[in-house]
Amino acid sequence: MSTFGHYFRVTTYGESHCRSVGCIVDGVPPGMQLTEEDIQPQMTRRRPGQSALTTPRNEKDKVEIQSGTEFGITLGTPIAMIVRNEDQRPHDYGGGGKSDMDSFPRPSHADFTYLEKYGVKASSGGGRSSARETIGRVAAAGIAEKYLSLAHGIEIVAWVSSVGSEHQFPTTAEHPAYSTHPDFLKLINTITRKQVDTFAPVRCPDSDGASRMTKAIEKFRDAHDSIGGTVTCVIRNCPIGLGEPCFDKLEADLAHAMLSLPATKGFEIGSGFGGCEVPGSTHNDPFVRNEQGKLVTKTNNSGGIQGGISNGAHIYFRTAFKPPATIGQQQQTATYDGDNGVLEAKGRHDPCVVPRAVPIVEAMAALVVMDALMAQVAREGVRAKLPMLKGVSLPVKDTGTNASGQNVEEVLNGVKG
Amino acid sequence: MSTFGHYFRVTTYGESHCRSVGCIVDGVPPGMQLTEEDIQPQMTRRRPGQSALTTPRNEKDKVEIQSGTEFGITLGTPIAMIVRNEDQRPHDYGGGGKSDMDSFPRPSHADFTYLEKYGVKASSGGGRSSARETIGRVAAAGIAEKYLSLAHGIEIVAWVSSVGSEHQFPTTAEHPAYSTHPDFLKLINTITRKQVDTFAPVRCPDSDGASRMTKAIEKFRDAHDSIGGTVTCVIRNCPIGLGEPCFDKLEADLAHAMLSLPATKGFEIGSGFGGCEVPGSTHNDPFVRNEQGKLVTKTNNSGGIQGGISNGAHIYFRTAFKPPATIGQQQQTATYDGDNGVLEAKGRHDPCVVPRAVPIVEAMAALVVMDALMAQVAREGVRAKLPMLKGVSLPVKDTGTNASGQNVEEVLNGVKG
Amino acid sequence: MSTFGHYFRVTTYGESHCRSVGCIVDGVPPGMQLTEEDIQPQMTRRRPGQSALTTPRNEKDKVEIQSGTEFGITLGTPIAMIVRNEDQRPHDYGGGGKSDMDSFPRPSHADFTYLEKYGVKASSGGGRSSARETIGRVAAAGIAEKYLSLAHGIEIVAWVSSVGSEHQFPTTAEHPAYSTHPDFLKLINTITRKQVDTFAPVRCPDSDGASRMTKAIEKFRDAHDSIGGTVTCVIRNCPIGLGEPCFDKLEADLAHAMLSLPATKGFEIGSGFGGCEVPGSTHNDPFVRNEQGKLVTKTNNSGGIQGGISNGAHIYFRTAFKPPATIGQQQQTATYDGDNGVLEAKGRHDPCVVPRAVPIVEAMAALVVMDALMAQVAREGVRAKLPMLKGVSLPVKDTGTNASGQNVEEVLNGVKG
Amino acid sequence: MSTFGHYFRVTTYGESHCRSVGCIVDGVPPGMQLTEEDIQPQMTRRRPGQSALTTPRNEKDKVEIQSGTEFGITLGTPIAMIVRNEDQRPHDYGGGGKSDMDSFPRPSHADFTYLEKYGVKASSGGGRSSARETIGRVAAAGIAEKYLSLAHGIEIVAWVSSVGSEHQFPTTAEHPAYSTHPDFLKLINTITRKQVDTFAPVRCPDSDGASRMTKAIEKFRDAHDSIGGTVTCVIRNCPIGLGEPCFDKLEADLAHAMLSLPATKGFEIGSGFGGCEVPGSTHNDPFVRNEQGKLVTKTNNSGGIQGGISNGAHIYFRTAFKPPATIGQQQQTATYDGDNGVLEAKGRHDPCVVPRAVPIVEAMAALVVMDALMAQVAREGVRAKLPMLKGVSLPVKDTGTNASGQNVEEVLNGVKG
Repeated sequence: MSTFGHYFRVTTYGESHCRSVGCIVDGVPPGMQLTEEDIQPQMTRRRPGQSALTTPRNEKDKVEIQSGTEFGITLGTPIAMIVRNEDQRPHDYGGGGKSDMDSFPRPSHADFTYLEKYGVKASSGGGRSSARETIGRVAAAGIAEKYLSLAHGIEIVAWVSSVGSEHQFPTTAEHPAYSTHPDFLKLINTITRKQVDTFAPVRCPDSDGASRMTKAIEKFRDAHDSIGGTVTCVIRNCPIGLGEPCFDKLEADLAHAMLSLPATKGFEIGSGFGGCEVPGSTHNDPFVRNEQGKLVTKTNNSGGIQGGISNGAHIYFRTAFKPPATIGQQQQTATYDGDNGVLEAKGRHDPCVVPRAVPIVEAMAALVVMDALMAQVAREGVRAKLPMLKGVSLPVKDTGTNASGQNVEEVLNGVKG
Repeated sequence: MSTFGHYFRVTTYGESHCRSVGCIVDGVPPGMQLTEEDIQPQMTRRRPGQSALTTPRNEKDKVEIQSGTEFGITLGTPIAMIVRNEDQRPHDYGGGGKSDMDSFPRPSHADFTYLEKYGVKASSGGGRSSARETIGRVAAAGIAEKYLSLAHGIEIVAWVSSVGSEHQFPTTAEHPAYSTHPDFLKLINTITRKQVDTFAPVRCPDSDGASRMTKAIEKFRDAHDSIGGTVTCVIRNCPIGLGEPCFDKLEADLAHAMLSLPATKGFEIGSGFGGCEVPGSTHNDPFVRNEQGKLVTKTNNSGGIQGGISNGAHIYFRTAFKPPATIGQQQQTATYDGDNGVLEAKGRHDPCVVPRAVPIVEAMAALVVMDALMAQVAREGVRAKLPMLKGVSLPVKDTGTNASGQNVEEVLNGVKG
Repeated sequence: MSTFGHYFRVTTYGESHCRSVGCIVDGVPPGMQLTEEDIQPQMTRRRPGQSALTTPRNEKDKVEIQSGTEFGITLGTPIAMIVRNEDQRPHDYGGGGKSDMDSFPRPSHADFTYLEKYGVKASSGGGRSSARETIGRVAAAGIAEKYLSLAHGIEIVAWVSSVGSEHQFPTTAEHPAYSTHPDFLKLINTITRKQVDTFAPVRCPDSDGASRMTKAIEKFRDAHDSIGGTVTCVIRNCPIGLGEPCFDKLEADLAHAMLSLPATKGFEIGSGFGGCEVPGSTHNDPFVRNEQGKLVTKTNNSGGIQGGISNGAHIYFRTAFKPPATIGQQQQTATYDGDNGVLEAKGRHDPCVVPRAVPIVEAMAALVVMDALMAQVAREGVRAKLPMLKGVSLPVKDTGTNASGQNVEEVLNGVKG
Repeated sequence: MSTFGHYFRVTTYGESHCRSVGCIVDGVPPGMQLTEEDIQPQMTRRRPGQSALTTPRNEKDKVEIQSGTEFGITLGTPIAMIVRNEDQRPHDYGGGGKSDMDSFPRPSHADFTYLEKYGVKASSGGGRSSARETIGRVAAAGIAEKYLSLAHGIEIVAWVSSVGSEHQFPTTAEHPAYSTHPDFLKLINTITRKQVDTFAPVRCPDSDGASRMTKAIEKFRDAHDSIGGTVTCVIRNCPIGLGEPCFDKLEADLAHAMLSLPATKGFEIGSGFGGCEVPGSTHNDPFVRNEQGKLVTKTNNSGGIQGGISNGAHIYFRTAFKPPATIGQQQQTATYDGDNGVLEAKGRHDPCVVPRAVPIVEAMAALVVMDALMAQVAREGVRAKLPMLKGVSLPVKDTGTNASGQNVEEVLNGVKG
């Protein structure tokens, strides 16, 4: 489906060569200041060509809010946003001679499966499987991010953690998962998008790592080849209690969100795959009272989520992106008709998409958190109207001061900060 | 939420100490033979204690169909299924002296977050975070699996691919992902559930691997500790065309399904995280015509999914499970009130849950495929009623004989076999 | 589908001759006292045979909570409820001689369409089209009603407003709609379920009307015929602001809910069909400040809903039920095979279902209000965390004291009372 | 919510003074020819001012397809459509002196409830409660209507059946519901949109009725007052088997759809409210074999739906629209602040919206049928892959030739014609 979320519902549309791409966002909080200036920065960060980062007045991929605001204030009604496509001429497949791209389904691309699924296919480019589809996601996430920041101070920052076999934090016998690596834990406390972007074009906030990864990309570029990598993302200040078990555990929705991105092959939360190799006695995150009197975990192998529900610690996860399928090298493959042949892609191709994936990963994380937040706000809101439970035979949260040291008023106001 | 799927909708209920656990399945195909005997085998496979496997007449976790069938035939109406809980006495928290388990939120368990989220918590055990919650999923999947097998010959088989640092197919410089490992590729062609179960209790279908993993589990068991591992799963004979981009790509729904299981930390499809380290020229799966004249991929780094849509090749993926949080060792942690203390879990605890996760992974895979299948059947069904497109300027599938060599009748009948 | 609601989600199951009927309710407010005693009264009110009303210890249709509570407190997890069927033996259609009921699709019944839709049909009775299906709805609504009453003092009362051509408030030239009838307006201020039940068996709270309706039913009963009627329902104390335009306007969800009940043919809100005949100058409901300083409407042709959103006035609506299809008279019709013949239903049949529909209408109204309430609580909850808007160029609600005279604290606590 | 439908999902956006209004349609059948010319005619029919009907090249409310088609063929991906707003300047509420419209919530309008619900309100006009919101619905329905017509020859025609107390078919003692009126039954067999439009501006296809209604509208217009009315709609050639009990019965979804339209107060299907007054012996629709050997009903009090499922007969229903709330007369009411005063609306106002509602009612009917069709196509498609049932103990449809005389191939192709 083209809709994501149950409370904060994002519906996207558009392919490479149609009039525009965009989205409708339903369930927007009313009474929030919002203009295109809140949306545009991430749109610009996701554009191809890192020069975009240094060209502030770049007019490309300019988002236009169509509805749902007046005088820069959200009305609570659906917000539609569109970004016009510059090249709106679809390729005429039937009219002239077939090119290679017409005859061959590109290996590991969506050409073959789109034609099989729909029985018809956009004439050229990736259609809806193109990275251009993600524009609507990033636009919608601009609204979510503004709210999450204003209301809860939530910060979501992603960066490139590996390119090919070059890792920012290589696994070691001591640290099979980077969830125990002190440098990693320090990094996620403070890393900002601005810092990440200073390491353009590779967006790995680590001089040594960035240098190694840049070289790796250059090597594959020069060989007319491509390479994959991973993006790590941290969510800070996420309220406790988000995630809707049993099927919509917070990590399940994050995994869904990330694997819905083009070219993704894997997802791990907290200690992840490496965590399988650590004994429970090491992996368990013991509780401790912090300076504010709140119960927090001492370590964070859980990645900020226990039992599918956020526990107040930093949420962090990693997403794997495969090497781009379109490469300059000749490929031995077969045509749609099954004839063997050699496909040679024309033009310049991006040898590694991982740096551009950074704002898209952030966007999807924002959509997941916003949706989970609204579900929990509804629950806490209805609960707050019930008579207090007293003397009952099962554990209840003292709503005077809860386990996190939050007082009644905070709890009644919505989700805890 | 407690509902999974849009077309084949499964809603589950139940915690450890209530009257029963179970589910309602809506969207069931009508006119299919179905009795409890179709459901029970996987219920038995998921039970704690491997002796269950060798006790055919074990009466525990016995499923009862409540509705939706008559004389062993599905009516197309919702099928409710229940499994009675044997121990229905919740622990009286308020009545007597508090035990350790009452005072301490267990580290890396759901105790703390459930209380925070709901403001109230089941008195003992894991409540809805308990593995007992998965019974409803497995029961529902029994219906899906029967249909998928009858209608398309689909086979779904999972097994234990690692315990701790013991891997069935350790990564090597040559094979950073096992998607290129010849032994792995051979295994997924033929592996059956029966074969997997012959390697009880560890369920790794490999003598050497099973032996290494068994020793690893014993080591952690003897140390009153626990260990995680991974489960790999293959789906064979999945029709081409399943998966609903852009948000419900097939791998996105699989990732969602797997990360919704208790204790999971990661998911990877096809080449997965290892695939990030392979050049595109190696990673791309070229097309070739097979003996039946169908277009298939020569390699399968994609794991059977391109552009979010099944391509007819085996779909395979891996899910990471963390070490169980409940261990016999003393743990230094804090009480709900924030006081430091030592928690010592009583009783025997399962040092490794991965072998029991096998049927649950299969169950969730079946639910994902069934839901995606119904979405595509609806699409193909409505398309089949439209006039044929002729002489149009974009690629269309020849419905006489399509790219997979299927003829019109097959296509019109629904999804391609 | 078998699920109703987006936030407070009710999934029902069961037909006449299966093991049990029931439901799973997801999205239940946690921390609310709830036992079977909260659910049973309405279950008993919906039972066939009015003697049920006077037999307090009647053991039939006894509801059993399966999950989601402990020690009588809701956990916030799904609540499953089941009611066992007494007659669980489906009719063996293939085994013996066909009866009339086997050969004939009953006129205006679901027999024909169920067989066409599903390709298979429950052997006897109405299967899922039977009124027995509504048990799950009434059980689920018991939870909603308890919450709505505890948290907002909401009262939902339905009664029989017509049987055949006997109307409680016949339309007149002066009052083409009863929305302007003083007796009607007085009645909806105070009517209770208890009062309605004193007019058993017909449940029209009006001596004259009840007498006329009873006679009408007796007339049709004696003629082995049947007759329809209408049920009117009022919702008092509904918070302002419920309803989710544009597609889920509150009256749209109510209409959906009512027309999903068996045997319904129509729905009208407020002035309804009669309101079409009244000039706008009369139909408009002017505003006035009430004694508490709140803005309210002077008249209530709107039926408590403006622009699809509750306005704080009583919500009232009317639902039409057709005469029962199963009658004792001989009917000239055709068999499934198309042969003409005479169908004669055996046994006693209910000549008028309207009195029994009363608690079912109340149940569906409760589900609609509960779902709309949770949607609005989520919206108000997220809005409450935003900075106050000041000096903006469009109307904003003064959150110090809003248009309803409610103060900040009330608003921040959730939906306004 | 702003989304309608589960399989054919329509999401709309836009208010009176934003940049554009429109929709995204997800679940569109791929491979269908579609251009703006398929969409525009109904857009034009819904425009204010009947002169639109006679101005073929009117450029207003011009729809633009943004995505989801190439070379006039649907791709199966989401289709976004937009219609630009001509007046995009919202009214500056804060900047200058308040007008009457700023101070007064209009009686029976959405002003008061929108402000209460969202805490903020569009500065002028009805915002999202404006009839302009329906543009997105009509655009989306253009796609559904094209498909329904091409694939099943479905025809949907609505017309004005009453204005004020002037009825096309007044109820009589003999015909308390028009479901038994021979003239009505004749009309619904053949009525076309073209015929309806020849009775512009009132759109009642009956010379006498149209004349009476026109006079009624003129009377209220001259009195600066307004009047309501009803729209009746027929759906012809709807396949048997549509509707998803128990909650999504076909009439329930139709009722939902109609009551989601602005200014609606009631809905009735088939015999409707009048049918409550008819004995069951008259109301029941007996079966008979028609000339093609199919089982059909002799009468049609059911309105084409039995047990919530279409039975192959014409589906017809009626929707009630209240008098427009905005009138030229002075109205005694209160300001937002609770002060009594007189509101006098400026400008010309439409005294009766019913004629314009005709295409909107048709649009919503098309969306309901399309969604129900796809649900049933999915069901029949999955069923068609199952082994035939033989010798079972409950009724099954002979898939060789079913009760409707359809053969296997038709059934396997999808929904029956």
